[in-house]
Amino acid sequence: MNKSAILHIPLSQYAFATGEHNLTIRIRTGKNDLTACTLYYGDRACNCTPVRFYPLPMKSIGEDNLYTYYEANVESDYNRICYYFKLEKDEEWYYYYADQFTHKLADIKLDDHIIEGRSEYYQYPVILREEIPDVPEWFKNAIVYNIFPDSFASDKRELSGESRVVEVELGSAVQELEKVSNQEGAYKTTCKSRLGGTINGIRENLDYISNLGFTCIYLNPIFVAGESHKYDILDYFHIDPCFGTDEEFRCLVEEIHRRGMRIIIDGVFNHCSWYFFAFDDVVKNGENSRYRDWFYDLTYPVVRPEDEKDLPNYACFAYERKMPKLNTSNQEVQDYFASVCEYWLREFKVDGWRLDVANEVDRNFWRRFRQTAKKANKESVLIGEVWEDSSSWLKGDAFDSTMNYDFRKHCREFFALREIDGRSFRECMLQMYLRYPVNIALGQLNLLDSHDVPRFLSLCQGDISRYQLALVFLIMYPGVPSIFYGDEKAIQGITESEYRSPMPWNKTEDIEVLMRELIYIRKKYLKPSDTFCFRDIVDSDEVICLERITDTGRVLVWLNGSKESIGISDSISNCITEESVLLTNGFEQGELNTNSYVILFIPII
Amino acid sequence: MNKSAILHIPLSQYAFATGEHNLTIRIRTGKNDLTACTLYYGDRACNCTPVRFYPLPMKSIGEDNLYTYYEANVESDYNRICYYFKLEKDEEWYYYYADQFTHKLADIKLDDHIIEGRSEYYQYPVILREEIPDVPEWFKNAIVYNIFPDSFASDKRELSGESRVVEVELGSAVQELEKVSNQEGAYKTTCKSRLGGTINGIRENLDYISNLGFTCIYLNPIFVAGESHKYDILDYFHIDPCFGTDEEFRCLVEEIHRRGMRIIIDGVFNHCSWYFFAFDDVVKNGENSRYRDWFYDLTYPVVRPEDEKDLPNYACFAYERKMPKLNTSNQEVQDYFASVCEYWLREFKVDGWRLDVANEVDRNFWRRFRQTAKKANKESVLIGEVWEDSSSWLKGDAFDSTMNYDFRKHCREFFALREIDGRSFRECMLQMYLRYPVNIALGQLNLLDSHDVPRFLSLCQGDISRYQLALVFLIMYPGVPSIFYGDEKAIQGITESEYRSPMPWNKTEDIEVLMRELIYIRKKYLKPSDTFCFRDIVDSDEVICLERITDTGRVLVWLNGSKESIGISDSISNCITEESVLLTNGFEQGELNTNSYVILFIPII
Repeated sequence: MNKSAILHIPLSQYAFATGEHNLTIRIRTGKNDLTACTLYYGDRACNCTPVRFYPLPMKSIGEDNLYTYYEANVESDYNRICYYFKLEKDEEWYYYYADQFTHKLADIKLDDHIIEGRSEYYQYPVILREEIPDVPEWFKNAIVYNIFPDSFASDKRELSGESRVVEVELGSAVQELEKVSNQEGAYKTTCKSRLGGTINGIRENLDYISNLGFTCIYLNPIFVAGESHKYDILDYFHIDPCFGTDEEFRCLVEEIHRRGMRIIIDGVFNHCSWYFFAFDDVVKNGENSRYRDWFYDLTYPVVRPEDEKDLPNYACFAYERKMPKLNTSNQEVQDYFASVCEYWLREFKVDGWRLDVANEVDRNFWRRFRQTAKKANKESVLIGEVWEDSSSWLKGDAFDSTMNYDFRKHCREFFALREIDGRSFRECMLQMYLRYPVNIALGQLNLLDSHDVPRFLSLCQGDISRYQLALVFLIMYPGVPSIFYGDEKAIQGITESEYRSPMPWNKTEDIEVLMRELIYIRKKYLKPSDTFCFRDIVDSDEVICLERITDTGRVLVWLNGSKESIGISDSISNCITEESVLLTNGFEQGELNTNSYVILFIPII
Repeated sequence: MNKSAILHIPLSQYAFATGEHNLTIRIRTGKNDLTACTLYYGDRACNCTPVRFYPLPMKSIGEDNLYTYYEANVESDYNRICYYFKLEKDEEWYYYYADQFTHKLADIKLDDHIIEGRSEYYQYPVILREEIPDVPEWFKNAIVYNIFPDSFASDKRELSGESRVVEVELGSAVQELEKVSNQEGAYKTTCKSRLGGTINGIRENLDYISNLGFTCIYLNPIFVAGESHKYDILDYFHIDPCFGTDEEFRCLVEEIHRRGMRIIIDGVFNHCSWYFFAFDDVVKNGENSRYRDWFYDLTYPVVRPEDEKDLPNYACFAYERKMPKLNTSNQEVQDYFASVCEYWLREFKVDGWRLDVANEVDRNFWRRFRQTAKKANKESVLIGEVWEDSSSWLKGDAFDSTMNYDFRKHCREFFALREIDGRSFRECMLQMYLRYPVNIALGQLNLLDSHDVPRFLSLCQGDISRYQLALVFLIMYPGVPSIFYGDEKAIQGITESEYRSPMPWNKTEDIEVLMRELIYIRKKYLKPSDTFCFRDIVDSDEVICLERITDTGRVLVWLNGSKESIGISDSISNCITEESVLLTNGFEQGELNTNSYVILFIPII
């Protein structure tokens, strides 16, 4: 037995509750190494000693190039569980618990008194109903359209393209916090826009978005800020004047809700603008500023460097001098932004927050923020910007979801750059899925594009057929698909200004039709919880066959990522009737053309 | 290369901060599998692309029967780090990041634009100074004496042995919460004691405890409760009348502090007594009780079952009908017990809490509790009762420390039951040490005995020489040693009443002398942060050689756990002068007798 490959981590993605009396337990082993794998679970509070255990065979749920992953779903009367594994490879076998391989169980006897041991098994100490990992149901069902406001629209199917510079007057620190209207200490700065997009522009195009099938809009930042991207915020309580007014935003939210859609806004709390009132105060008052503890690593006097090459004498987002880092460990800072959180949820009824640079913010900040958000609206959703494995932020005290850039990475490697084959791609997708509890994985915001990365179509070097394959996969795969504005119009772009380029309202692309059809199919045939697996239907590492099992049948998604047309065996081919084909661009009886896809629905007979 | 053995987990015991610009990074590999292991780290916010990386050779810090563990300590100007590993086995080599083996770095180019990749390395997103894992310094230096109050003392070097039953009157629920003195609804119940120990009895023996060298007292529960163990609490704001008065307790704390010692009390918040005011209210008022949400899984009417064999119709601690489970997810319950926390810290100046059944309590309860405790006294310490791997409670939002029953388990297997050899014991100790960040491991409450387990001497079947070896190891090993009252008097006991038997004040045992000497040596020669390793000094798996490296030299602890006397090579033996022997019971030049120990100090020359 390859013992060194065995991995189980209690209270993790390897052991999590899915209901008050339901646990999912997983174990990783060497690839195809075991001949049997059994879970034994018992009531850890059991009145008799030794504890009575119940066996449950574990099933392989997939493998990658090194490991096989086993899973069992415990359903029992107990909510306090202890457990161990029995691992078998032909005649060789071990019990496995406390990360040890042994032939003995833990209940030991001494002097005829049975004295101890049950605490030495793996423990799921208690399932508390408030702690079962999950995500608001509406969000798991969402299909998200992500808008970069400056670049989207200024009117119905129109973007003016006109840049603006608007002067704004900001209240002094005293005014801001005490909400008095004394003008003393007020100061002026400017807000810029580049392409002319507005809040009203978005509102004018809600039917367009809704007709594509989207159910949720995620807006990049909209609060008063200096640059056109609005990530350098001056005032967290108002809409940027280049974009519109607070009332226009209220109207937008109402219109979104009237269509049965939801809206998520962008929260930038790791840093602020260097003209934000509190930072302005430390520039003016130095060590005497009442806000000196709102920032990180200040040295005095605090100076705004004129040249962008000069390193600032305070901590920043990256080394960006115009974006001083907030000290999010500070209680007052936590209080202030909790009030921002509550304000937009309660007063404007937004449905959630996407949270910028989430992994550089103090965890107690997020605990406070989450508590506030869920109190204001239990169904609100919090999405952290964490590009890497986000396990430690998805434990119930921070976010519901994170932006799944790893989804994009694997799609880039397989669909766009062809640097990995289909088998590796499937393995990466499985690993990614298994790194969170199921209900958390189903709430991941899967994306190919965002405001921070080159357009996926450009990664495909403009090859629309490769891009289509990725899009089919995105929308049919478990998780919440997110589409960046204009992806339906085949926007390309490598540099920042390119991938944030104006929405080309006058273009109509085939991809727009495909997107609408895919979303339609997803909504009609799939629920978030429909399980998935990858099948081998042909002898090729370049064909992906994603299968999703629904209440009424199976949805099969076949993608031929190879440069050649690939034949399908008669036995499989013959099972497919014309009615079972939901969508295809190149499936002929017995043949999957290069870069083709086909989506099939096989009802339960 | 044994790829399947490689393990690195970001933001875990494999990657943690030890200072504002210090990170410890670890990786696990197959045992002795690699020929080189290098960490490459860089500034993840670096202004140039690709990121500039710095290599750091990783050193093996030990091995067990399957794995070798490597570690590197990064000290840099950066507090936002990305990193990858280079793993080498002879000619075979890989970069390792994002849990993938590859020959490529992540920074990729497209169309001559360098576009992305750094987010795909392993990330330590930011070191925030408020989030560096650590434990109050005084606690890492503590040597703890754990007293079960009923069994300890009623006077100077005396325990009356007299049981008592005291009637108490409890205020109604209304009175309790509103603090009014209306007697309506008040009810009576009883508090019991078995052996007569009191608060004053403890106070009378502080010199005894202090003279042994202990610096901290941990008391099992002392609040008003029904049974003699006091884990069924009736009133969280007063001292049990069998034990004494609130004023006597205040006096005890003062006397402890006057001696430069600290005191930790026991908090039982998972459950309460079935005569606790809130539970009494749900028994009386059923569904109409204002406290119905304070308990878990109530069914109505709520009835106290007369027979202990009858299953209660409400959730309990284990299935103990007299201890109904509190609903610790409830905000009011969290508020109530946060006020208990604050009361004893502020009003009585206790130095910390040991927290009962900590792993069955809602995690938000602990977050609230911790926040309250640290606000009341930043130096207060919180110790959870978690018997198993406690990683998920030691992340900075719950406890500083947990009761390390695994320490006891491994000592039991090696010293007492001889079921594992010394090599396995060392491996278990290493695994245990590596499962937390260093500063957390140094704050673990290591124990051989507690109020919940058979006396270790009984596990040794009364063999005092085996028990002595374990004691030497406990006190010289990293972590906070905890001694259960009477261990210095060689108390034995397998059943609960036996291992909680009366303090035998009139006995004097050699072990008491040994304990004093060990504590003296620990205090004189060792700091918590002195690193440790195990050495091979003889060709025997039964000899443990623990080495601790101090600022002025090395402390060597040799234990011969075998049944035979073992010779030491001349080359080692000759290095030892008489002056270097701090303590021994059977070391002769060149020979370690069976069950002997020797503690040596070798100064830096």
